[in-house]
Amino acid sequence: MGLADCVVECIHSHQSRSLEELVAFCAIPSVSTLSEHAGDVQRAAEWLADRLQRLGIEQVSVLPTAGHPMVYGDWLHAPGRPTVLVYGHYDVQPVDPIAEWRSDPFAPTVRDDCLYARGASDMKGQIVALFAALEALREAGPYPVNLKFMIEGEEEAGSANLEAFVDVHGGRLGCDFILNCDGGILGPDAPSLTYALRGLSYFELEVSGPASDLHSGVFGGAVHNPAQVLCDLVSAMHDDQGRVTVPGFYDAVRPLDDAERRDLAALPFDDDAFKRAAGVTETWGETGYTDIERTTARPTLEVNGLVGGFTGEGAKTVLPARALAKLSMRTVPDQDGRELAEALRRFLAERAPSTVRWELRELSHGDGAIVDRETPWIRAAADALEDVFGRRPGFKREGGSIPIVGLLKRRLGADTVLLGFELPDAGFHGPNEKMHLPTFYRGIEVYARFLSRL
Amino acid sequence: MGLADCVVECIHSHQSRSLEELVAFCAIPSVSTLSEHAGDVQRAAEWLADRLQRLGIEQVSVLPTAGHPMVYGDWLHAPGRPTVLVYGHYDVQPVDPIAEWRSDPFAPTVRDDCLYARGASDMKGQIVALFAALEALREAGPYPVNLKFMIEGEEEAGSANLEAFVDVHGGRLGCDFILNCDGGILGPDAPSLTYALRGLSYFELEVSGPASDLHSGVFGGAVHNPAQVLCDLVSAMHDDQGRVTVPGFYDAVRPLDDAERRDLAALPFDDDAFKRAAGVTETWGETGYTDIERTTARPTLEVNGLVGGFTGEGAKTVLPARALAKLSMRTVPDQDGRELAEALRRFLAERAPSTVRWELRELSHGDGAIVDRETPWIRAAADALEDVFGRRPGFKREGGSIPIVGLLKRRLGADTVLLGFELPDAGFHGPNEKMHLPTFYRGIEVYARFLSRL
Repeated sequence: MGLADCVVECIHSHQSRSLEELVAFCAIPSVSTLSEHAGDVQRAAEWLADRLQRLGIEQVSVLPTAGHPMVYGDWLHAPGRPTVLVYGHYDVQPVDPIAEWRSDPFAPTVRDDCLYARGASDMKGQIVALFAALEALREAGPYPVNLKFMIEGEEEAGSANLEAFVDVHGGRLGCDFILNCDGGILGPDAPSLTYALRGLSYFELEVSGPASDLHSGVFGGAVHNPAQVLCDLVSAMHDDQGRVTVPGFYDAVRPLDDAERRDLAALPFDDDAFKRAAGVTETWGETGYTDIERTTARPTLEVNGLVGGFTGEGAKTVLPARALAKLSMRTVPDQDGRELAEALRRFLAERAPSTVRWELRELSHGDGAIVDRETPWIRAAADALEDVFGRRPGFKREGGSIPIVGLLKRRLGADTVLLGFELPDAGFHGPNEKMHLPTFYRGIEVYARFLSRL
Repeated sequence: MGLADCVVECIHSHQSRSLEELVAFCAIPSVSTLSEHAGDVQRAAEWLADRLQRLGIEQVSVLPTAGHPMVYGDWLHAPGRPTVLVYGHYDVQPVDPIAEWRSDPFAPTVRDDCLYARGASDMKGQIVALFAALEALREAGPYPVNLKFMIEGEEEAGSANLEAFVDVHGGRLGCDFILNCDGGILGPDAPSLTYALRGLSYFELEVSGPASDLHSGVFGGAVHNPAQVLCDLVSAMHDDQGRVTVPGFYDAVRPLDDAERRDLAALPFDDDAFKRAAGVTETWGETGYTDIERTTARPTLEVNGLVGGFTGEGAKTVLPARALAKLSMRTVPDQDGRELAEALRRFLAERAPSTVRWELRELSHGDGAIVDRETPWIRAAADALEDVFGRRPGFKREGGSIPIVGLLKRRLGADTVLLGFELPDAGFHGPNEKMHLPTFYRGIEVYARFLSRL
């Protein structure tokens, strides 16, 4: 099916080396949101640059940004063949709650067919899989396509400097399409391709009142408690139908038509596996939508964190001076996160009592995206998945957010193929993140077949 | 007025030594709720025992309890005179938020007539003031009353082992009345005596859902967020009139009659000073009551702390596995904290959705108390305050909680005189706790005159 036997053989015989590479990459704690890990993030960038050079990629450079660097490289010696801009990120999420990890998140450990490590699935595993595919292809001859690489170190921090990078370096990034490896499939035997992503807008809402924490016996009852007000405000953001109550929140949402709802319903979405992966016995959400619709085609407003007052061991009878919620919206086409931020601000202005002060800080905004399912690149990806998994992939929407997809469409006019191998129970962003190794090995072969099929 | 001139002179000439003693005592970080300070708590007990011995007190001992020790001592050589059981506590509150302290909480620092230190007002200041009074009395002759001391190390941790201690040692504690120094006055020129205290019941409410923190993009919208549910539950605990909505919460509250409301209204309660001390521009509370009634004669339900999910720097897009609120009730006579805990449990059982689990943990319960204003001891205290401050004290209710008052009334049949010198802006339980030194020096003289007047 378009791939030389020697390539497949090479991939199979090099599995243990691929795993070693993945272990080495995951051992670097490249947590982009924590300043104490800045050196590790730099180290991960250099690790990547070294690997790209060993793959014969040219112009390899670790390019500075206002934040963490971008790793660039290209190989442009396949005239008449498409040019693929590979996008990925080498940074990872923080590890807390660290106590819940069964093994050190940065001492990658194999248990039960899986490699447990922060970043194993999101997304160092896909980078290493693609590199292994390239290595096998290279043993058989020159690469079948032109390649460019743009691998960032701030995806988990909201990609704050990505847009500026594209502004400056856009001239080098021209391509026929983008291969974004930061995605997943529905199950070990359920290949799928993602055609839509949710956007992400992240906020901090701080409510403050007294100048400092007060004795709750002396002041309690006559001073409005900022933690209580925060709870009032957060609670008011949803109604009892699971709908977000911020006025205008749903105005721009592109409605699901019957055909798309049928396609989503036909996906091999396993309700029990979803609940098992979440560790819940019952799902919940916006009335009138299925779980797959709620998590991929409908917007949400989530509390990501709460903190205020005394949170240590035992009792401390304070009336907190302030309380803070981390909030985020998962937006869908055609919502605009910045407009929703204003809607939330108006909602708070109307709801917050005059007894407290409040501040809504916008940490980041990334738009959602929908891509055309009918490009030759998507067809090649679908064929490669079918070659390896033995079944046609489903087309799915993704609940997560990859702001780069919309950004590159706007700036480079290029569509994205999202092709990655995370599984729904991979635990990414949570403790005990893992990569399912049989799927990782299949992923290597899919990448090789995909690039050969273009 | 019943106090030898030499005693007053001795108090005045020894002011700097009294301050040095206070500095030394406050430098011991005797935080009873944090296990890492267990050694410091023990050290504070030994410091006290040493001082009592130097005052000629006999039977001085550091008696073990299931938690932190009790310091006991007595001096019973004034036949025919009353026996006073002095109650106090040598433990202090935790210091967080530590970043808000202008100086190290355990490196006591004088600024603007005040000593800044954790415990300076609550209540090491009153202990040192009483000791300074005793020292001056002793220079003039034998003590004018029989004395017993019972100074505990767990008041800030809910006095968990106090009841058991009284059960075991009740035989040694017989007295005519209790002098409890853990109180305050309304202002530097507004002497007052406390005749009622609120009780305290402390809880942790934990809401949990997913087995671990989840990726909010993948699961958000279809998994009920425990932090959101916690906000819903906490928010539902009050209505928009500032009333607690837990059914039955107010059933046992002893109503305020018109005479008592008039007395409370006549107190020199300074609205502006209250707001300044709290650092707010506006008060808040239960409709139909004044601020002084809300903080002293009405029960409250307060959020003391909130924590859940990601609370660090920047953004982390998790759906938290759990979220926790520290809650406390300030109860008034004749409420029963244990009954209210059951009422809260029923409220939660009715309100909490089936999509999450929840647990209400009862950390401690202490009853409120009202004492008779017409005992000879109260009259002696009022006279001593008038001697020193030049005006008759007001009678006030206290918003805070001193469970020992009700306990000793039940077990020893003895009334309590609450005589202390904290000021409303002392910042106790919060950062930058301080003792107003001119008031501290006046307090020494009040204690000496009080004991001489009995």
